[in-house]
Amino acid sequence: MSIQVGVYGATGYTGLELIRLLAQHPQVDLRFATSEHSAGQSLRQSSPLAPDLILVPAADAPLENMDCVFLCLPHTKSAPLAALALDHGVRVIDLSADLRIDDPAIYEQWYKVPHPAPDLLPVPFGLPELGRKALIGARCIANPGCYSTAVLLGTAPLVRHGHIVPGTPLIIDAKSGVSGAGRTPKTHILFCEIHGNFSPYSIGYAHRHLAEVEQVLAHEGGLTGPVVFSPHLLPTDRGILATIYAQVNDQDAARQAFTDTYADAPLVTVLPPGELATLAHVIRTPRAAVSLTAGPGNVLIMVSVIDNLLKGASSQAVQNFNLMWALPETTGLTTS
Amino acid sequence: MSIQVGVYGATGYTGLELIRLLAQHPQVDLRFATSEHSAGQSLRQSSPLAPDLILVPAADAPLENMDCVFLCLPHTKSAPLAALALDHGVRVIDLSADLRIDDPAIYEQWYKVPHPAPDLLPVPFGLPELGRKALIGARCIANPGCYSTAVLLGTAPLVRHGHIVPGTPLIIDAKSGVSGAGRTPKTHILFCEIHGNFSPYSIGYAHRHLAEVEQVLAHEGGLTGPVVFSPHLLPTDRGILATIYAQVNDQDAARQAFTDTYADAPLVTVLPPGELATLAHVIRTPRAAVSLTAGPGNVLIMVSVIDNLLKGASSQAVQNFNLMWALPETTGLTTS
Amino acid sequence: MSIQVGVYGATGYTGLELIRLLAQHPQVDLRFATSEHSAGQSLRQSSPLAPDLILVPAADAPLENMDCVFLCLPHTKSAPLAALALDHGVRVIDLSADLRIDDPAIYEQWYKVPHPAPDLLPVPFGLPELGRKALIGARCIANPGCYSTAVLLGTAPLVRHGHIVPGTPLIIDAKSGVSGAGRTPKTHILFCEIHGNFSPYSIGYAHRHLAEVEQVLAHEGGLTGPVVFSPHLLPTDRGILATIYAQVNDQDAARQAFTDTYADAPLVTVLPPGELATLAHVIRTPRAAVSLTAGPGNVLIMVSVIDNLLKGASSQAVQNFNLMWALPETTGLTTS
Amino acid sequence: MSIQVGVYGATGYTGLELIRLLAQHPQVDLRFATSEHSAGQSLRQSSPLAPDLILVPAADAPLENMDCVFLCLPHTKSAPLAALALDHGVRVIDLSADLRIDDPAIYEQWYKVPHPAPDLLPVPFGLPELGRKALIGARCIANPGCYSTAVLLGTAPLVRHGHIVPGTPLIIDAKSGVSGAGRTPKTHILFCEIHGNFSPYSIGYAHRHLAEVEQVLAHEGGLTGPVVFSPHLLPTDRGILATIYAQVNDQDAARQAFTDTYADAPLVTVLPPGELATLAHVIRTPRAAVSLTAGPGNVLIMVSVIDNLLKGASSQAVQNFNLMWALPETTGLTTS
Repeated sequence: MSIQVGVYGATGYTGLELIRLLAQHPQVDLRFATSEHSAGQSLRQSSPLAPDLILVPAADAPLENMDCVFLCLPHTKSAPLAALALDHGVRVIDLSADLRIDDPAIYEQWYKVPHPAPDLLPVPFGLPELGRKALIGARCIANPGCYSTAVLLGTAPLVRHGHIVPGTPLIIDAKSGVSGAGRTPKTHILFCEIHGNFSPYSIGYAHRHLAEVEQVLAHEGGLTGPVVFSPHLLPTDRGILATIYAQVNDQDAARQAFTDTYADAPLVTVLPPGELATLAHVIRTPRAAVSLTAGPGNVLIMVSVIDNLLKGASSQAVQNFNLMWALPETTGLTTS
Repeated sequence: MSIQVGVYGATGYTGLELIRLLAQHPQVDLRFATSEHSAGQSLRQSSPLAPDLILVPAADAPLENMDCVFLCLPHTKSAPLAALALDHGVRVIDLSADLRIDDPAIYEQWYKVPHPAPDLLPVPFGLPELGRKALIGARCIANPGCYSTAVLLGTAPLVRHGHIVPGTPLIIDAKSGVSGAGRTPKTHILFCEIHGNFSPYSIGYAHRHLAEVEQVLAHEGGLTGPVVFSPHLLPTDRGILATIYAQVNDQDAARQAFTDTYADAPLVTVLPPGELATLAHVIRTPRAAVSLTAGPGNVLIMVSVIDNLLKGASSQAVQNFNLMWALPETTGLTTS
Repeated sequence: MSIQVGVYGATGYTGLELIRLLAQHPQVDLRFATSEHSAGQSLRQSSPLAPDLILVPAADAPLENMDCVFLCLPHTKSAPLAALALDHGVRVIDLSADLRIDDPAIYEQWYKVPHPAPDLLPVPFGLPELGRKALIGARCIANPGCYSTAVLLGTAPLVRHGHIVPGTPLIIDAKSGVSGAGRTPKTHILFCEIHGNFSPYSIGYAHRHLAEVEQVLAHEGGLTGPVVFSPHLLPTDRGILATIYAQVNDQDAARQAFTDTYADAPLVTVLPPGELATLAHVIRTPRAAVSLTAGPGNVLIMVSVIDNLLKGASSQAVQNFNLMWALPETTGLTTS
Repeated sequence: MSIQVGVYGATGYTGLELIRLLAQHPQVDLRFATSEHSAGQSLRQSSPLAPDLILVPAADAPLENMDCVFLCLPHTKSAPLAALALDHGVRVIDLSADLRIDDPAIYEQWYKVPHPAPDLLPVPFGLPELGRKALIGARCIANPGCYSTAVLLGTAPLVRHGHIVPGTPLIIDAKSGVSGAGRTPKTHILFCEIHGNFSPYSIGYAHRHLAEVEQVLAHEGGLTGPVVFSPHLLPTDRGILATIYAQVNDQDAARQAFTDTYADAPLVTVLPPGELATLAHVIRTPRAAVSLTAGPGNVLIMVSVIDNLLKGASSQAVQNFNLMWALPETTGLTTS
């Protein structure tokens, strides 16, 4: 089987990684890649290891005869193209935030703009390890945010099985490599601003990924205490490590919840007791890893790690693509 | 006034920074620096910017005619030299852990060896911003650990004024540059192991600095909930940033506790609302900075930052030295 | 004596370093700092360690009552302000390229625009170690480029004393930290583009600093072979290291030329045989260091190092300021 | 076909990369991996992404029934094991320096020890792009050094075709990531020594890889001028970039020599005019890239780049293995 695909937004870090993965996917025939700023150029000018593919503006992308498109676009730009593709009978995997939130009012609350295509909602949320069924054969999938992926993999089993002490806060201290901030030039992500520095941003209850995290955890059974989420910017290019603190009823049962939840997940590893998750466990791989450490009192510490550009974006998009087309989940993803 | 001083353990990162500071201190006459491995060599061979000072073994250090010595040695090596110096009438600033813990049984519990000189205990704990009085004119001062300094500056005002909700955990997520791990060659601190990586270690309730933190917080009024402390290794050379989560009774009063406590502290800044502390606020300075951010529920988030080699070690040693000799607290410390 | 000064272009890396130095200079009274984009804001918003100084647009800078201004502006923007200041009787230290080239035709050839103020030319070239006399009491000084400083300190003694074999090429392989590329956001200096990478650019005979290098070397006696200059971008924030290959007549005499030339230079060190210059010799200092190594045949290898923001820009500007006002050359420059 | 292989010295950076490559090679059955220090442990303890393989001491490695072994050992340790393996009828790919130099006297001159197994010499030098024929079906191959690979790919076509002006020096300014210095803990490769630094070492005519470079260039036709080789240590983990300066008779013919030499090489790219080679062209790939830039006079500048752990060591070992066993040259090497 050869599936005809296109990528919108190819020159960002996520788009480049996605195209690298699609190029090695045995069932994929990559037909176009778009860029507004670099239209007419080869993708190799954006990255020396990219394929020599001439970029087209989104308006010129040939949707006829496509089977599936991937949208690596900013929020608000993405949903209208998703609607257009679906109208043409083309399936969609959206890597933006546009289709992740079921309720357009909550989208507007966090993103400060009206939802650009509320008729498309709801769309299955593409975190396979928390629910493959809705993704198999889906026509449209909302690929999760990078932080959301790390946080949900590190908390959902606790919530699903009711292990968090009611009313206590869930505290998430997350750290991300700089590629999570995108490739558009801005002063705060210049090399000289990041090198030798480390900084928190949008801490407490301010980061937009909280909307997805709260929605999914509500589906899993819900929390009665507050969710605190504090992202930080690491002086490295890629990877997310979230250190998560929860007060739990039973430490052993909590560990069991993780091993049970991920027993059949080919890309998520629950590390053995005594081994802590680090970025080196997952960088440049499509995998996630979670470690569990008992703290003092009833505090349980989850360390959840992913590569933000892969399991946090592009390899997860391929995982979702595989489920959408009923292919084996890890097709095209080297899992070493 | 010219004070005759010597430094034991000059070739580590802390020793090198201390000697740099002492060389620019207007009241200091640096008379010797010791090293066992590099004895007979110039200190310039350890660092191209160090003074051209011939190192001597500790056994050959001339204690007669000294006024004060600084000990930048590993724990268990330091206390016996402190005892020797005090016997010679020489004052001591100990940068090791040996003299920080008042109770030798607690020392033994955390350091897994009997205390090497229990007769010296207790010694004033050299964190000037939490208590200058005991340091002025002291004959011996225990310089705090690097993590302890960041953590205590970011929590003691809350504890002193009783702002933490009883029974709730105090959660400290700390990140340190690699120089905190010392200069003895080990695989895990090689460049290639750290570059591109980020890793937690000794998380929960395992790191030795918890002994100091708990002792000081007990003096400040005590906690009724557990202290969770999770250090991480950052891919940068220096700096500590601790993100601290506490449940508090009153967010405004808590902020007031910080501004009151540090009102007269020349080297600690409480940042204005809306500004988050980052490593760039303090790197290569003798300063600390703390920011306060309200989270959801009653969670208050303190971000406390220092340079681990300066306020976390060597410039704090000079601050303590100044107090010991009744000099202005910031003498010899450029505070820009 | 208190000298009233202003800084044009305060929010770039060079401007920030210059203001830090001026703030600690005992004879300087800093009266204004300009920025077009950040006018009305405090300089602290550009850097957390900067003084809390409100920026003004250049047009509002109060030139009356000033004694001296520093221009940290792009080429073509700088010369017109230099002319304006000189018209007001205010002395000028220009850190841009505008006043470095004596011949406006050569300026136009390299910078591809007509010279913005040819009437000001020539202006003394502010590399004190190659000629202090013209700088003492000067009304206007052209501060050299960063690469030019490293290259000229590592080659001028050879040329001055005629040690290079006629007709042979002078090969300069230079490497710079990223701050040399400025602080204006561009894709190629984003953290993720630099981290883990290393890249040559404008190699051979293409970089604009060649104009200054050739002008000064012509004054020193001239070369009969070609000058090859190959800059590279290092994955670090600051520092320039130039590895320079020359074929010489007499290796010993060549070393002597260096030690003679810099015998009275307080800020340039010729390293002893066997010690190679590294960035660690000079980073965050106003110093330069040069090492000399005999290669095979008659090749002599100079390694010349500076901090590009200090000796390559701002501390050299202060050195020039000191000479301009007949102050001791290193006033306000910590030389540790 | 399944080829039974073993790896001696698995826990260094080269060994880990080699095992990663062998694990994905379709014709390889990895049977053992050795380590003296970590014998009895899983290789996963050396790297979280390595396979879960129990290490054995070299003395216990089962040579019977092996087809081929790879030696990732220090020089002098390697040759005796090569001799042992060959005695058992097992083929050998030696990644150490022991078998690279045909003349044991030259080995002794550079390595300061007598050659450990002179009877094995000479052995084919495994740089396939300069001569595949001797490698096909070979029983023993000497894998080139990392610097040698970059330098020879960037110079051999010039020498082979006689393009270098007689008597002129060949100047090689090389820069390497830190993994080239190995994984044995030493002070100079600690993170804090490298971060923010850049340093030359063994410059001029002192680095041992000169022995290989001169041997191969002599085979290619020889040089009449000196070879200057100046390595530098980059603040990054991997990659070598060599900037090479040669005086040539004819710039166009010289470019032609490169494109002709590598016309059939699947893993070496000669970049088009105007594009400069950077580490980003090759990092984490088995590829090399070379760019050519005309300088002033008759100087031609080659920039040659490889990943020091892959084309400079482990992927080149696999390339050689493929030739040895008459497999397609890039089998098991993803070439994206």
